[in-house]
Amino acid sequence: MSIAEFSLIERYFTRQVVGNDSTKLSIGDDCALLSLPEGYELAVTTDTMVENVHFFADANPELLGHKLLAVNLSDLASMGAKPVSVLLALTLPTVDEIWLAAFSKGFLSLAELHLVDLIGGDTTSGPLTLTVQAMGLVPKGKALLRSSAKPGDFIYLTGSLGDAGLGLKIKQGYSCSNPEAALQRFNKPNPQINAGMALLDIANACIDISDGLTADLGHILERSHVGACLDWDKLPLADAVVDYINDTGDWAMPLVAGDDYELCFTVSPEKASRLTINCTQIGVIESTLGLRLYKSGNLQPLNSKGYEHFS
Amino acid sequence: MSIAEFSLIERYFTRQVVGNDSTKLSIGDDCALLSLPEGYELAVTTDTMVENVHFFADANPELLGHKLLAVNLSDLASMGAKPVSVLLALTLPTVDEIWLAAFSKGFLSLAELHLVDLIGGDTTSGPLTLTVQAMGLVPKGKALLRSSAKPGDFIYLTGSLGDAGLGLKIKQGYSCSNPEAALQRFNKPNPQINAGMALLDIANACIDISDGLTADLGHILERSHVGACLDWDKLPLADAVVDYINDTGDWAMPLVAGDDYELCFTVSPEKASRLTINCTQIGVIESTLGLRLYKSGNLQPLNSKGYEHFS
Repeated sequence: MSIAEFSLIERYFTRQVVGNDSTKLSIGDDCALLSLPEGYELAVTTDTMVENVHFFADANPELLGHKLLAVNLSDLASMGAKPVSVLLALTLPTVDEIWLAAFSKGFLSLAELHLVDLIGGDTTSGPLTLTVQAMGLVPKGKALLRSSAKPGDFIYLTGSLGDAGLGLKIKQGYSCSNPEAALQRFNKPNPQINAGMALLDIANACIDISDGLTADLGHILERSHVGACLDWDKLPLADAVVDYINDTGDWAMPLVAGDDYELCFTVSPEKASRLTINCTQIGVIESTLGLRLYKSGNLQPLNSKGYEHFS
Repeated sequence: MSIAEFSLIERYFTRQVVGNDSTKLSIGDDCALLSLPEGYELAVTTDTMVENVHFFADANPELLGHKLLAVNLSDLASMGAKPVSVLLALTLPTVDEIWLAAFSKGFLSLAELHLVDLIGGDTTSGPLTLTVQAMGLVPKGKALLRSSAKPGDFIYLTGSLGDAGLGLKIKQGYSCSNPEAALQRFNKPNPQINAGMALLDIANACIDISDGLTADLGHILERSHVGACLDWDKLPLADAVVDYINDTGDWAMPLVAGDDYELCFTVSPEKASRLTINCTQIGVIESTLGLRLYKSGNLQPLNSKGYEHFS
């Protein structure tokens, strides 16, 4: 890539100035500079998306830009952090202005929605690989961890489950009468930032559903050294997902499908009345290790790690 | 890549626990958590290295791990920041344990040397692409910027110039009697972290030499809206570089070769006596825009942007 091409790329990403209070110096120097308000810690995360692994060459670039940022913001949401800044490392095989305009539009629209500043990055020539580092503020000592679930905690989910999984099935050829909502969830996930922040001081443990409920809840169980009992019949399922299950018999799909980017969190019974967000109780944390799943009152056979049963 | 392979990769990178005071939560949750001491800002930077662009497939993985971290720490050094944390986004075509062991050794050895915690990352399958995000502490409002050079400032360089450039020439086939130091500088750059921190409250502007002196000084001139006059005869050149120039006549090499990762900085004459680090004055900032180069007392013809002359 020539210097002129690099300048061209920068043009698509430097127009954005949200100017939140944390940004002291943005793009243009060796580093960006961030300031933290007193009493806050910085939550930091990174996620990479690779062509032909996470998306295909013909993926809609605007949706890709949205999703790349969304998956990173979702990690911040799961800690209860308020996103403030992101860095974008772009490795591009060619300079395609149409692609760049659409990609940056998807990326920056979501950034602006959440008042997130793009404060730096790096552009290199090579196979299409997209890495974001996202940073957010969380009150000191208050971050929602995977490791803080306690026996007796209720297990909750924001929103509904399996929509993105159904969206993927539809993209793979499954036909249904009302595909729009499911496709939208798969194509354009919505990081649950406000929900995460509303759970501070209420939830014990929290994680975002990127790899599927049983896999991600499994991370909470493992890190918290606890087990759980889930009630399949309590799962919040959209009508289209219920129709899909009735149609195919694939009742495990909402448990194992990823990309929903809802939050799964645990709350002690005493604090449950303080929940103000839209969520559904789907189970209970128990001291006995392992994941137990009930469906129509019957215990479903799972192996010791629970989620591996489905993979 | 299978889950087992991902676990394998993680094993090479989670053994490191420097435990500096900034790290509140490291690898293992959705985000890492950082705390800043009062009165400090966070300097943040990212750099990507791509196979067949920044290095070849047969590159020594230990040196590659070192260099990947070094180029990121060098950006922190140029702001006067003290490095504290890094994230590592690894995209790997295969899981090669010998490669991973050597790469992580090079990366983590340099991290440990500078008390830097590897606090998170992402591992994905795909063409070999390596992205680091580095974070460092700098006292509020004190960061060394590209934009703060003032007419009358002396221009300085740490260390010596052109060593890495000579190293590259040697790798490309140039033969000399004392190649070791030059090859070492090219293969294993040393980020000038202590020098950068020692320049706080003394230097006006600062940048690290990654793309060559004239290109990088050019960034200071552009962002500070000033010009400069350089004296070629004052350049700090190692004997091997002087021999190379006498041998080839290529006197411009130290001006345009990258990868030295020394610091180029400007200091007002009043503060020059406060400099305690090993450095050499090589020119002066002037209000007249553009870069003027003198060699043996003669003005060398350069175009308006100076460094483009050489590219």
